[in-house]
Amino acid sequence: MSKKVILSGIQSSGRAHIGNYFGAMKQFVDLSETYDCYIFIADYHALHSLQNPKEMKENITNLLLDYLAVGLDPKKVTLFKQSDVSEHTELCWIFDTITTMPYLMRAHAFKDAEAKNKEIVVGTFNYPMLQAADILLYSPDVVPVGQDQRQHVEISRDTAEKFNRIYGQGGQTFKIPEPLIMDAVAVVPGTDGRKMSKSYGNTIPLFAEYEEIKKAVMSIVTDSSEGVPKNVYAIHSLIRSAVELDPIYKSKTGKYKELKELLIEDLEKFIAPLREKRKAFEKDIPKALAILKAGGEKAKKVASAKMAEVREKIGVQVY
Amino acid sequence: MSKKVILSGIQSSGRAHIGNYFGAMKQFVDLSETYDCYIFIADYHALHSLQNPKEMKENITNLLLDYLAVGLDPKKVTLFKQSDVSEHTELCWIFDTITTMPYLMRAHAFKDAEAKNKEIVVGTFNYPMLQAADILLYSPDVVPVGQDQRQHVEISRDTAEKFNRIYGQGGQTFKIPEPLIMDAVAVVPGTDGRKMSKSYGNTIPLFAEYEEIKKAVMSIVTDSSEGVPKNVYAIHSLIRSAVELDPIYKSKTGKYKELKELLIEDLEKFIAPLREKRKAFEKDIPKALAILKAGGEKAKKVASAKMAEVREKIGVQVY
Repeated sequence: MSKKVILSGIQSSGRAHIGNYFGAMKQFVDLSETYDCYIFIADYHALHSLQNPKEMKENITNLLLDYLAVGLDPKKVTLFKQSDVSEHTELCWIFDTITTMPYLMRAHAFKDAEAKNKEIVVGTFNYPMLQAADILLYSPDVVPVGQDQRQHVEISRDTAEKFNRIYGQGGQTFKIPEPLIMDAVAVVPGTDGRKMSKSYGNTIPLFAEYEEIKKAVMSIVTDSSEGVPKNVYAIHSLIRSAVELDPIYKSKTGKYKELKELLIEDLEKFIAPLREKRKAFEKDIPKALAILKAGGEKAKKVASAKMAEVREKIGVQVY
Repeated sequence: MSKKVILSGIQSSGRAHIGNYFGAMKQFVDLSETYDCYIFIADYHALHSLQNPKEMKENITNLLLDYLAVGLDPKKVTLFKQSDVSEHTELCWIFDTITTMPYLMRAHAFKDAEAKNKEIVVGTFNYPMLQAADILLYSPDVVPVGQDQRQHVEISRDTAEKFNRIYGQGGQTFKIPEPLIMDAVAVVPGTDGRKMSKSYGNTIPLFAEYEEIKKAVMSIVTDSSEGVPKNVYAIHSLIRSAVELDPIYKSKTGKYKELKELLIEDLEKFIAPLREKRKAFEKDIPKALAILKAGGEKAKKVASAKMAEVREKIGVQVY
């Protein structure tokens, strides 16, 4: 029996931190053990908000190095770049022609963006159609999403069904994907107890040097009224089990500094191999880029076979 | 000095009539003598309104045969199909990311369509961006348009300028095209005196058989109060000069039947060679399709070179 297919797009939100790792990256690596996995760098989506070519190139390269460093295996995962597969934007256009304006205006992301700023770009409005194309080209069984992104998969499902209905001719062109809701570990606490996020400035970088780890841990917010410093414990529990941690934290009640020092050492043990692996990839960027390029070629084969079906169904294939 | 470049998209509106010929087709053939000419079958635009694969295929083939029959020379014209050059939809997406919703909502075609029906598709809204991509990929100097389509070129110019400004880096990526307003002969009169149009049922088919010509001419609306039957004269003047026609119409004042018979013979002389040429192409459709395919390959080279520039400018080209 062939493996089920899973697909996900990734975008840069700056330097990777352990929140990204436990919230998404590690999960992709784990999923790639059981699924036929497609992961793409969503550079054409990123264009909505990023109009700086230098930063765009850096983000692409950094995302690639990050994912390779955390152990994504190109033998198990088709890791590629959206802009390397022109079928994504081509199918987006075709979906534009079967989707009504009122339908797309009901998308949460559009409504949120418009509430903040009337001058949003067309790409922000149209992106659920590109996303539907991103997904449906690869016939995934499941698409991992956070609870708040559930609607994205709903729109893709609607669009697949709409296309299948209009251009069915006795067969379904697109497989209807299921959402795989990943909310269990989605919220990783930051150094201030809020969700770890670059915008809160409360992150621990995933590939941090020892001194950075130390600085970040020392900045963890504690409250002198706590016996067990909950923000320290929360981060600690990402890398060590409660069974191991609880006796330690009990024996060191109130000794915040000692607990933080222990967390520093544990984080260093966890981060050091990742950091070293990333440095190794950094030393040979052309090799990393060759992996991305080969992934693009593999993805292109799958996508263009699906587009050939689509083109036949809509009637533009005349040769 | 190299020739100036001109580009135009064509769409099927059913069986070609002499209104299409004098209003557009003949003008393209004439323009191809002095310009480096790109003409594409806009099948991806047609998807807004046509969701019937059989009809789509027929329209593509018929448009191709029509244009070859009227003398469009593949040596002088790059005749291709929009859906054969994926760069059109790819660039459309990129333009989506630099164009605001309010800007695109000001487009006449969108406002007209929305006034009639709130449930218009996203493609109808987004099509000026695909049109901008259609045009700008080929760096045309001029784009022939009717007076009522002037805004399409304006939007393309705006979009080119916007991209050049955002991603300039000391050079312009897109040439700013000029509109070539073709309104002189745009209105060809039909058999009832109104503009010749399939929707009015007042056409004379361009590749009509003799009996069809006869039937159409006999149906030309005349008024017994007229000395010179103006609707007959108007159509006649498309194919013979006033210098020739005026003495004839003067000598046959009031003799509508005789004048119509003369028009039938003149139309037959004009149409017969076109009709025969079309039949010759119809006999070898694979040959006609091979011309279209080769045109697509030629267009793809130009478009992909421009897209390579665009990708470098926006920062997604990392290899």
